[in-house]
Formats: sequence, C-alpha cells, structure tokens
Amino acid sequence: MSDVTSDSSPTSPTDPTRVIELLSAVVGAEVVSAGAEASDDYGHDEALGAAPVVPVAVLRPRDTADVAAIMRCCTEHGIAVTARGSGSGLSGACIPSVGGVVVSFERMNRVLEIDAAGGVAVVQPGVTLAQLDAELAPLGVAYPVRPGEYSASLGGNVATNAGGMQAVKHGVTRHHVLGLEIVLPTGEVMRTGGRTVKSSSGYDLTQLVIGSEGTLALVTEATLKLVPRLPRAATVLVPFPTLGEVSSAVPQVLASGLNPLILEYIDLLTMAAIRQNYDIELGVPDEVQQSALAYLLVQLESTTDERLDDDVANLGELLVGLGAIDVYVLPAGAAAQLVEAREKAFWLAKGNGADDIVDVCVPRGAMPAYMEAVRAIGERTASWIAGCGHAGDGNVHLAVFQGDAAVRKTVVRDLLRAGLELGGVMSGEHGIGTTKKPYFTELEDPAKLALLRRIKHAFDPAGILNPGTIFDPEVSS
Amino acid sequence: MSDVTSDSSPTSPTDPTRVIELLSAVVGAEVVSAGAEASDDYGHDEALGAAPVVPVAVLRPRDTADVAAIMRCCTEHGIAVTARGSGSGLSGACIPSVGGVVVSFERMNRVLEIDAAGGVAVVQPGVTLAQLDAELAPLGVAYPVRPGEYSASLGGNVATNAGGMQAVKHGVTRHHVLGLEIVLPTGEVMRTGGRTVKSSSGYDLTQLVIGSEGTLALVTEATLKLVPRLPRAATVLVPFPTLGEVSSAVPQVLASGLNPLILEYIDLLTMAAIRQNYDIELGVPDEVQQSALAYLLVQLESTTDERLDDDVANLGELLVGLGAIDVYVLPAGAAAQLVEAREKAFWLAKGNGADDIVDVCVPRGAMPAYMEAVRAIGERTASWIAGCGHAGDGNVHLAVFQGDAAVRKTVVRDLLRAGLELGGVMSGEHGIGTTKKPYFTELEDPAKLALLRRIKHAFDPAGILNPGTIFDPEVSS
Repeated sequence: MSDVTSDSSPTSPTDPTRVIELLSAVVGAEVVSAGAEASDDYGHDEALGAAPVVPVAVLRPRDTADVAAIMRCCTEHGIAVTARGSGSGLSGACIPSVGGVVVSFERMNRVLEIDAAGGVAVVQPGVTLAQLDAELAPLGVAYPVRPGEYSASLGGNVATNAGGMQAVKHGVTRHHVLGLEIVLPTGEVMRTGGRTVKSSSGYDLTQLVIGSEGTLALVTEATLKLVPRLPRAATVLVPFPTLGEVSSAVPQVLASGLNPLILEYIDLLTMAAIRQNYDIELGVPDEVQQSALAYLLVQLESTTDERLDDDVANLGELLVGLGAIDVYVLPAGAAAQLVEAREKAFWLAKGNGADDIVDVCVPRGAMPAYMEAVRAIGERTASWIAGCGHAGDGNVHLAVFQGDAAVRKTVVRDLLRAGLELGGVMSGEHGIGTTKKPYFTELEDPAKLALLRRIKHAFDPAGILNPGTIFDPEVSS
Repeated sequence: MSDVTSDSSPTSPTDPTRVIELLSAVVGAEVVSAGAEASDDYGHDEALGAAPVVPVAVLRPRDTADVAAIMRCCTEHGIAVTARGSGSGLSGACIPSVGGVVVSFERMNRVLEIDAAGGVAVVQPGVTLAQLDAELAPLGVAYPVRPGEYSASLGGNVATNAGGMQAVKHGVTRHHVLGLEIVLPTGEVMRTGGRTVKSSSGYDLTQLVIGSEGTLALVTEATLKLVPRLPRAATVLVPFPTLGEVSSAVPQVLASGLNPLILEYIDLLTMAAIRQNYDIELGVPDEVQQSALAYLLVQLESTTDERLDDDVANLGELLVGLGAIDVYVLPAGAAAQLVEAREKAFWLAKGNGADDIVDVCVPRGAMPAYMEAVRAIGERTASWIAGCGHAGDGNVHLAVFQGDAAVRKTVVRDLLRAGLELGGVMSGEHGIGTTKKPYFTELEDPAKLALLRRIKHAFDPAGILNPGTIFDPEVSS
C-alpha cells in the first residue's frame, strides 16, 4: 500500500511527473515507462477516425499484485487507467484518457494451464489467440472464438466480448469464459465464476465484466472453455443472383441441422475488393461471377470424410433449391485464403478509404429487411456502403464511404437506428468504445444509461477506469 | 402513479390492511388477493426444510403496466416484493418476506411469438416449459433448456438460471435468453439485449438479471433462442464397476465429438430407489446389476438413423474400452421412463426422507476427486449421501440423509467447501436462495459479497426485491 500523500484532486488529471513518481513508488520504476519509452503505439487502437492520445505513462505489470498496487494508487490519486491488450480493437476503447495511464498486459502473457480432458485452459490477459491456438492444436482441442485478428489478446477479447466467424456454431467470448480473476479499481482482487460450465451462485460477475470494455475491472486471468477439434472440414462458396436470396437462405441452412462452423455472406463490392487484393483461385467461371450479386461462404466440419461428403451434398442440394447459381467446394488452399481474406475485410475497407465501419447485429430473419434499409440509406445520402458479415448471427459488417463528416454522422446513426428498430443491437462484437459512444448515448434508453452508470459506480466509485468509454461519466442529454 | 401518501417507514413492514389498500389503489382490487384467496401455496417453494411465510397479499398482474405500478408503490412504501412463477424452485428463493407481498405471474402466461425460421420465441414469464414445448414441437424447433420439472415457468428459469440434463450439449438458461423486458423496483420498464445471439453494446443486463433470483428486477418478457429439433435419438444405459470409472469416462465421451444430448451418472443408491419406485424394463441382467456400482446414462441425437447407429456403436466401443461392464440401448419407452425417473430423482430423495440437497458443480475432470470427498464426508459424519447428476457438466446432485440439524449443517458446508476447493461453484442450477444463503455468505469472499450488495443497490435502492435472498441486506460477518 502506498504511503505517498496525494496532492492531486481525484477528479482531475494529476501533473505527469507526479503521476510517474507516485506509480514508480508503488510498483518500481521498471514497471513504469514514460517519454520515448512509451511509444505512440500506446495512444490508439484500430478504430477509424479516432484521435490518438499519448498516455502520461505506460505501465507493464508483471503480475496481479502489480495491477492491484497500480489500481489502489490510481483510485487514491484520481488517475485515469486504460487497459490495453494487443491494441487491435475497432471501437477506440483502448485510447487512453488525457492525463491518464495505460496498463499494458504484454508481460502477463503466459498460458498457465491446459486441461484438455477437462476442456479448460487458464490464461493471462496478454496471451494472444495465435499463441493459445498453437498450444491447443496438438492436443486436439480448440478455443473456438475466432475474431479475424489472431494477434488479439484474450484480455481484449474479454473486454469487447469478441465474436468472429465461428460464433454461428460456438457462440462468442461470453459463452467460452468460465471464470475470471479481476482487480477492482480499489485494488481488491477477486475470482468470479469457476472452472465449471454452470453456476447459479450469486450475480454473474464474469458475464458482467465481459464486454464492459475495461470500465469495471481489470482482468488478470481468464479460465476458458475448450471444445474438441473435429478432424474434417469443407468450405463451400455459393453465388446467388441477389443479396436477398442469400439472407433468405440462411435460416434454412440453420434449420437443416447441418450446424455450420462458418456461415458468412459477402456482397459484390467486398468480393470485388477481395479479388483485387488477393490472388485466390476460386474456380467460379466468369459468367457466374457476372450474374452473382452476393455470395454465401459456408464451412462444415465433421468426424469422418464420409459424413462430411454427405453434409456437403445435402447443403448443395438445399442451396440450389433456394436459388443458388451453383455450389463450389473450394480446395483447402483457396478455402484458407478466402476465409483469411474475409477476416481481413476491415483492412481492405480501410485500404480502400472507408470513413467509418459499423457492425450492427439484427435477428437473422431480419437480414433481408436490414439490407434493404442499408441500400436505402446509401442511396438517400449518396454514400457507398459495402458489406459482408456473419450471416448466421445477423451480424452485418458495413464499411461507410462518405467524406462529409456531418452526412457520415447521419448515415451511421441511421444504420444503427435501423438495426435497433428491427430488434437488433448497435454492435455485435466490436463494442461501443469511444467512437460509437455518441450514437449509443443518443439512441439508448436514458433509464438504462442511468442504470449502467450506477453499476459502473458500484465497481469504480472514483471513476478511474477507462472514463468516457461506452458512456460519459456525467448524465448526458 | 400513486398519489396515496405513505404513512409507513420504507425499512419496516407496513400494516397488512394498509398494504392491501395501497396496492389496490394503484392496480385495482382484482389484481390483489389476500386472506383465504391468497392460499398457503404462495408461502413456499419445494426447498427442503425451509419454513413457509404467508404473504400479506398475492398480486396477479395482468401486464407490464401492472407490474410497474406495483413496483413504484412498493418502493415508495417499503413493501417487500417476492416474484413467483410456478413455485417449483429448490432454494427457497420464492418464499415471501414477513410482511411482504408475492407477485405471481400466473396471468402473464402467453407465448407472444414464435419465429421458427429465425430461431426466436418471445414469452411472458408465467409460460411453463411444458406449454412452450407443446407449441414448439410441431414446428421442428426446441427451447433446449430442460430442468426436470416441466411445470416450471420461464420466469422462474430466468431467475435461477435453470439447467437440466441437456446442458451438456446446449448450455443453460443464460445461453438461451437473448433479451428481456424488466421492471426495476422504481417502476422503470426497460428492454435488455435484443433478438440477436451476439451483442457488445454496453454492460450485459440480460446476463446480470439471469440467475439473480428475483433480487434485481422483475422479468415481464423473455426473448428465447431456439434450436432445431433433430429427428433421431438413442438412449444408452452403461453399468460400470465403480463410480470412479464413470467419472473418468466422461471427459473421453466429450472429447470424442459424439456431442451427447444427455450425459448423466446415477449411483447405486439412486438406481435402487428408481428401481423400487418405477417399473422400468431396463434389460440389465441381475448379475450385471449386482456388480455395477454406478451407471452412465447417455442420449445421442442425430439427423439420420444410420448416423445414430454408427454413433451408438462408437460410443459403446469407447465405453467398454474404459471399463463399462456392458452397454444397453434402451427401447424408446424404457428410455423415456428412465429419463423421467432421473428427472424426478429429487422427489425420490424427498420421499425417502432426505434432509437436504446440494447441487455443487465441479470441473468435470474433478468429479472423481469430488466423489471421493463426498464419500469421506459421509463416512466421517455417519451420514447417507446419495447422488446422481449431470456428469457432462460436473453438476453433482446429492441428497443428504442426516437427522441431526447441527451435524447436517457441517455436512452441507463441507460438501460445498469441497466443491469450491476443486474450482467449482456452490450451486450449478438450483440457486442460493434462502436455504444456501448462510453457507454462501460464510464461504464467499467478503469483498465479492460487498460488490454484489452494491450492484443490488444500483437496481434496488429501497431494498424491496426479495430481501434476504442470496445474501442479507446488511453486511454480515
């Protein structure tokens, strides 16, 4: 516990030199970097159009005790704390506060335990998805939450409730985290959940912290649920004459019991960008390409080749009956390339000059209606809106090309509102962060916002954790 | 909004006549029953050994507006409110407070919508599992959360985060509720979540309310996720020489990719009780019965008979290799009877004079160690402890036969503590309620209890919702 006396107000940023001094006193200078050592990398994530903020210091805790000491000190002195995993988020949630510090989990990057038979892994927050998968693969198990960026950290995945393409079969982060070790802003360390898939033992703090974007507590350990890795997989690309037919086919595929691992749609613009940027041999003849306005990408997995072949045949028959132009089973190499290209669609959009992105999630049955609303918004505002997405979940990823900032704001608000009106949510997997906060606080129920603020206060009475993320501390109009 | 002036303290029970008067003024006398009309049934659930409490009044709201009016009035006047679905809970969570009222959802019992293609149903809280299943079955979809009691209500299932036998494949209530309409104690009505399977849009209030045992908010509508109903199923009964071998076989079955719908263990005492009370032709020869100390009950489902036959053959081969005495594929009638008998194991235990029950959940890999701890506790305290449970989830249901109340308290505490020490949780699906509260508040981390109380306060500043459930309002030692 620090015995340094505070001379700062708990509600305003402290003098930078003093912040560094206070924190060095409690965790040692080797944990605290500032100036050139705290590079510009720590000032931003991958959100489009979000202004970076250079933190006063970057803290690299070695263990939970360091995190607890940092939190106590920051609560005592009113220093804002922003947690950072790999910085690959898309909502601006790990951009530090002005005058605040970054807690980077790069040193807490160990896989602590893998119990393949029990289906459990225990990781520190700095472990990346790629690192974990490399350790799990030889054991025949998988952590099946696969957002497109494998350099992402598990801590960041917990913070945003990351999803990805396999969510249609396996759900999202919140379905695969069994328990956490968390540190409250007061420095209290506690364990939530356990190593079990079920619990009815008090409020589910694990679920509350997941998706809270670093505003309630810092995660210092996560216990994950693993699944068996099935040995056989096939990837099928299915061109359709219209996007509406793709959307309509999705519920039928899900009702069939084929239980796809991946069920994605790719629109014409996105497929053209993929073709332009990647050299993938998809085997789709030119005349089919010319008549296809949208594609369904389906991956099936199974225990045996025979079952897989049957499933692929049944899928093909089903989709041709639903209007597919044809069905292409991709060779393994092309399949992996196309899945990767789809995962990197954000980078394609960014490279092509997209001005903003949204990842509205609507009921999968409402996808045709939503896509029609998107088309109308684009037309009305003379904006280009390209898309692809997790069709099985109704999670639509849209890239908005609209150079005029005021018009763009209207476009994004209308895209979000159209999703809400169909029973959807503003973000399926990216989070609200700072970039979607203005829309969230405008479009959300004020009573709910007030409740969220009270919950935040129950965890973080001094308001030091990632202030201004999801919502602003004070009541906004 | 009530314009009746309160003459009661918000922290103490109000005069019964006045409570009835106040509530009748805001919702009308037809919603408020008291005296003989509010029968003894409303004073208890199915928890063993919990003393019933007669409520001052039973309120039967017709709609959300009634619930909101009741909540506003009760917050204003400090009247304790306990929600009630079917009253089939096992933890005492719907026993009213002394001087309090019961809100019974029996009139709010409509299935509002079924969207089979979209995989979504919307229900009022008083809808029972049996009622919902009868509507879903003809449509080829299912709400797969199947706790043993089908007269249970969806509202009650949400309150306890109900589980059941199919959780090994489909998860529990929290994995199948997409959104809620809730009423806060202040009378504010809000929607949480949506009709989508993914969301990263602010703190997950849906997940926070699920499992909160009626202490945070009342649920007036739930949006549920449905799954396809697979057409083929087979039930296999597998005797083993020891319970340890059963526990050891479970992880292997799960790793196999066979993805069982049900994976239960039944111990010798429970199987004997089932045999005594039900006339089921299981086809297990006497000599096998005599050498079997425990059974595994497995249900597999598939899309075709051929696949199902293959899966059953593979399962049999696997289990015989792991020490099974033999493998019995049950005829459909016997299978349904045995599954039902297993579901009703609580009633068997109750009928046989069980003094208490626990439903500790441990990591499935820790089941052999836990069963050994249970044996040692029984031996040390001269208690009979019979069990069965959801082996695939590590959720162990134990019936404790120990007439001495003081010894029994030690036994239950030791059973819970042994589970916690193995990385488990105190209750997998029953909840803490009032009957497990003393153990919960003794064994849980005090810092976590304090956080749970602050969260409760964020929802329920007047402390009217099911006070004394899960934890007591004041800080206990």
